[in-house]
Amino acid sequence: MNPESISNDAQLDASGKLIHLLGLKGLPKKELEHILDVADDLLDGQGNLKKSKALDDMSVANLFFEPSTRTRNTFEIAAKRTSANTINVDLANSATKKNETLMDTMQTLKAMQIDMFVIRHKKNGLPHRIASNIDGVAIINAGDGINAHPTQALLDMMTIRQHKGSFEDLSVAIIGDIRHSRVAHSDIQALSTLGVKDIRLVAPQYLQYKGTLTEGISRLDNLQEGIDGVDVVMTLRLQKERMVAADIPNEQAYFKTYGITEEKLKLAQPEAIVMHPGPVNRGIELDSGVADGPQSVILQQVTNGIAIRMAVMVVLAGKA
Amino acid sequence: MNPESISNDAQLDASGKLIHLLGLKGLPKKELEHILDVADDLLDGQGNLKKSKALDDMSVANLFFEPSTRTRNTFEIAAKRTSANTINVDLANSATKKNETLMDTMQTLKAMQIDMFVIRHKKNGLPHRIASNIDGVAIINAGDGINAHPTQALLDMMTIRQHKGSFEDLSVAIIGDIRHSRVAHSDIQALSTLGVKDIRLVAPQYLQYKGTLTEGISRLDNLQEGIDGVDVVMTLRLQKERMVAADIPNEQAYFKTYGITEEKLKLAQPEAIVMHPGPVNRGIELDSGVADGPQSVILQQVTNGIAIRMAVMVVLAGKA
Amino acid sequence: MNPESISNDAQLDASGKLIHLLGLKGLPKKELEHILDVADDLLDGQGNLKKSKALDDMSVANLFFEPSTRTRNTFEIAAKRTSANTINVDLANSATKKNETLMDTMQTLKAMQIDMFVIRHKKNGLPHRIASNIDGVAIINAGDGINAHPTQALLDMMTIRQHKGSFEDLSVAIIGDIRHSRVAHSDIQALSTLGVKDIRLVAPQYLQYKGTLTEGISRLDNLQEGIDGVDVVMTLRLQKERMVAADIPNEQAYFKTYGITEEKLKLAQPEAIVMHPGPVNRGIELDSGVADGPQSVILQQVTNGIAIRMAVMVVLAGKA
Repeated sequence: MNPESISNDAQLDASGKLIHLLGLKGLPKKELEHILDVADDLLDGQGNLKKSKALDDMSVANLFFEPSTRTRNTFEIAAKRTSANTINVDLANSATKKNETLMDTMQTLKAMQIDMFVIRHKKNGLPHRIASNIDGVAIINAGDGINAHPTQALLDMMTIRQHKGSFEDLSVAIIGDIRHSRVAHSDIQALSTLGVKDIRLVAPQYLQYKGTLTEGISRLDNLQEGIDGVDVVMTLRLQKERMVAADIPNEQAYFKTYGITEEKLKLAQPEAIVMHPGPVNRGIELDSGVADGPQSVILQQVTNGIAIRMAVMVVLAGKA
Repeated sequence: MNPESISNDAQLDASGKLIHLLGLKGLPKKELEHILDVADDLLDGQGNLKKSKALDDMSVANLFFEPSTRTRNTFEIAAKRTSANTINVDLANSATKKNETLMDTMQTLKAMQIDMFVIRHKKNGLPHRIASNIDGVAIINAGDGINAHPTQALLDMMTIRQHKGSFEDLSVAIIGDIRHSRVAHSDIQALSTLGVKDIRLVAPQYLQYKGTLTEGISRLDNLQEGIDGVDVVMTLRLQKERMVAADIPNEQAYFKTYGITEEKLKLAQPEAIVMHPGPVNRGIELDSGVADGPQSVILQQVTNGIAIRMAVMVVLAGKA
Repeated sequence: MNPESISNDAQLDASGKLIHLLGLKGLPKKELEHILDVADDLLDGQGNLKKSKALDDMSVANLFFEPSTRTRNTFEIAAKRTSANTINVDLANSATKKNETLMDTMQTLKAMQIDMFVIRHKKNGLPHRIASNIDGVAIINAGDGINAHPTQALLDMMTIRQHKGSFEDLSVAIIGDIRHSRVAHSDIQALSTLGVKDIRLVAPQYLQYKGTLTEGISRLDNLQEGIDGVDVVMTLRLQKERMVAADIPNEQAYFKTYGITEEKLKLAQPEAIVMHPGPVNRGIELDSGVADGPQSVILQQVTNGIAIRMAVMVVLAGKA
C-alpha cells in the first residue's frame, strides 16, 4: 500500500481523544505536544527515568512480525516501567502459522484481555487495518513497512525540544535513505506539525523522498548545502541492500559523499545537534568523532525513547 | 502409553486435596465444580478478568517440550494475573539436551524454588510421571500427547455452565478428530462427571473415539444425526496430517461432511452454543458465518481459559 | 586472553566498595564473606528462599552471548526474587549482528536505564572490558570463556560453609577438566582466599590446571590419592569434545579412572560432601548412587545459586 494513501483517522475517537498511535500524519499538534509533555514529566531533574504505576492493572503484548530486538526491548522496558504486565508473543511459531487468520489471532489476544498491542510489521498500513477491525484494544504502531514509526519520531521531537526549546525557527537536515525510511517519513510529519519551516531532505537520487513536498520542505542531493547552517542534523541508517540498488559502489563512497565528519559538521550551526535512530554504522553514516562528540545526542535519544513509549502507553490508557 | 491405563491418582493427596492437575478422569465432581466456582469469581460483572494477589510470593515455570505459543501465553498471562513470578524455560536449548535426565532437570528447577510446573509434552502420561517422582511442586498438565488437556476441558465446562446453568439435561455433540484429541478426551470425562446423559461423538471411522463407552455416550458418523437437537456443539481442530491418514480427500470434503454451516446448525436447539478450542480453520471445521455468529462462544472460551488457569493455580496454591 | 593476565581491579571503586562482580581473584576475603552472609540471610530457617524488595526500582538485563538456559534462568529468578524488572536481550538477533559495535550496544542498553548487566561470553575478559568502558552500570560476570564464573564459586563456598562451618582446616579435591573450567578457576581462587590449605587438583595430564600453583595447591593425576581423606569432593562437568582431545577413549574409560562411585567415595572423610555444578552426566562424573546419595549436596547448590545471585545483586545495588 502506498504510504500516502494510508489514513490515521482511526487513532482518534469521535471526540478527538487518542485511542491508538498509528502515525503522526493528521495527529493534531496539541495531542503531539501532550505526549511530549507527559514524557518530559517521566524524567527527573537529572534526566533519569521515573517509574510509574499508571498501568498496574493492564497488560501489553509485543507483536513483532518483523524481528527487531532493540525496539521490542524498548517497548518491553517502557511497559514494565509503567507497571504493566508484558507478554512477548512469538509470532514466528504461533497460530498465524497454523492457518489462523491474522484477525482471529488479534481477537484471541484481545479475548485474553490484553489491553494494548505493540505491532511491528513489514506491510505498510497493517497496524491501521487491525485498529479498524478491533475495538477495545489500543494499537501502537512500532513500525510498519516504510510507512511510519511514530514513537521514533516522537522521541526525536522530544530530544530536539530539550535542546532547542521550540521548533518554529529551526532548520533541520534529514540525511540518508529517506525513501525507504519509516523513521524519516514520521519525522517529516512531526517537524511539519510542530512548525519547522526549513526541512532539508538530503539524499542521492535513488534514495530521495518520493512523497509530495509541502511548504518548507526541500530536496537536495548535496550534503554541504544540506547541512549549511542547520540546527539539527538527523542521520538515517543505511541498509546495505539499498546501497547496492542505489548504485553506490561501496560504503566508503557513501561515507565520502553523505557521511558526517567533524569537518563537515562545522558547516552547521555551532550548537547543532546530531541525531541517529541507531544502531549506528560508524564510518558510514557518521564517523566516530561525531558519534561520540559533544554535539551527538544519540544516547539521549535512547533514554527519551523509553520515556516516549511510556508516555504513549499512559496517554492511551487514559491516565494522562 | 495407552491413555486408558494412565491414572490421575497422584493429583489428590491422602486427604483428597488437589495437589496437581493431571487430568479430569477420577477428579471428583465437587473438586471440579470448585475450580469452576473459583474461576467464576475471577470475572467481574462485565465478564472481564480481575487481577489477583493470591500467588504474589510464588513462582510458576512454563515447561513446554512441545511448542504451543498460544497455550503457553495463556498460562503466562494467568500466572501474571495472580501476581506470580513466571519463567519460560527454553527446553529446546536446555540441559535436557546436554544429556541430563528429565528428572534431574525437574529436580533442579524445583531446587530453584519454583512452586508450579506447567508441562506440555508429546508423550502420554509424562506429567503424571513427573508428579509421581517429585514432591513439593504442583504439576499442571497443559496437554500430554493425546491423553488429556484438563484446563481446556475446564474452560469448556465453565463456558457451558455460563450459558446453560446446569449439565444434567444437556445434549452435547463433539465433532471431528476425537481419536487424537486430548481436548475431546478431557471434555468427555468432564461432561460425564458433571452428569451429561447424552454425549454424541461424531467423527468418520478413522478419527472416531477408540476408548470404552460409558453410559450416555454414543458414537455416530453422521453429522446431521449428531447435532440434531443438541444444546452444545463442540468442534475440534483438524490436523492436516490426520486428514490424509483418515482418507479424507481434501479439506472441502471434510467441510462438506463435518463442517458446521449456518444451515446445519439449524438442526441443533435454537439456543445451542458453538465451541472450538482454537485456532479455527475457517471453511474446514466451521464456516465464518458460524464462527462469527451469535451462537459462537469461541472468544468467550479464550477469556474463560485465563480465568480457569488462574483458578487452577489459586486452588493448587491452597489459596481457595 | 590468558586468564592469568586478566585483572579484576575494576570491580572495586577507589574506596574498596564492590561495584561489579568480575571474578574472585583479588576480591578481599571480607567482601567475599559479606556476600556469603547476605546470601545466608536470604534463606529462612528451613533452607527456603525469601523474597526481597531490595531492587524494586531497578532493572537487570541478561546478556548471554553464549547460550546457557540454566544459568540465565537462575539469574532471571534471582532478579525477580529481589523485585527487579528483568529483560532477556536476544543477542543472536540483535544489533550486534547489524555491525553495531559491542560497546555501542552496551551504551545503548545503559541509556535504556538498565542498572545491571549479567554477561556471559565465550571470550576471556570480555565482562572486564565492558566494566572498564562503561560507568554507572553494574556488571556481573556469568561466565567468561575459561576464565571465571564467580557466582558459581560463591555458591560453592556458601554450600561448603553450611556443611563445614569454616575453611581453614579443610582438604578439598577438585576433579575433572580443570584446565577448561571457569568454575574450577574461580573455585581455586575462592578456596585460597578463604584459607583452605589443601586444595588437590585431580585430572589427567591434558585436562590439568595450567595456572601457577600457590601454596597449598597440588596437582595429581590419581583419583584415589586425590580424594584420600578430603572433606569436600568437587566434581566438574566433562565436555565430550574435550574428552576426545584428552585422548580419553570413551566415557566408560573416564568414569573408570575419574568417576566417583560409592566405593571410591569411602576414601574421603565419612562426612565429606560431594558437589557438582550441574548438569550431571550420570555414569561419567558420578554414578547415580553418589549423585542421589546422602553425601550429595548438588540440589542444595542449586538453591544456594539463587541466594548467591540475589545477594550479589543486592550488594551491587548498595542495599546490603
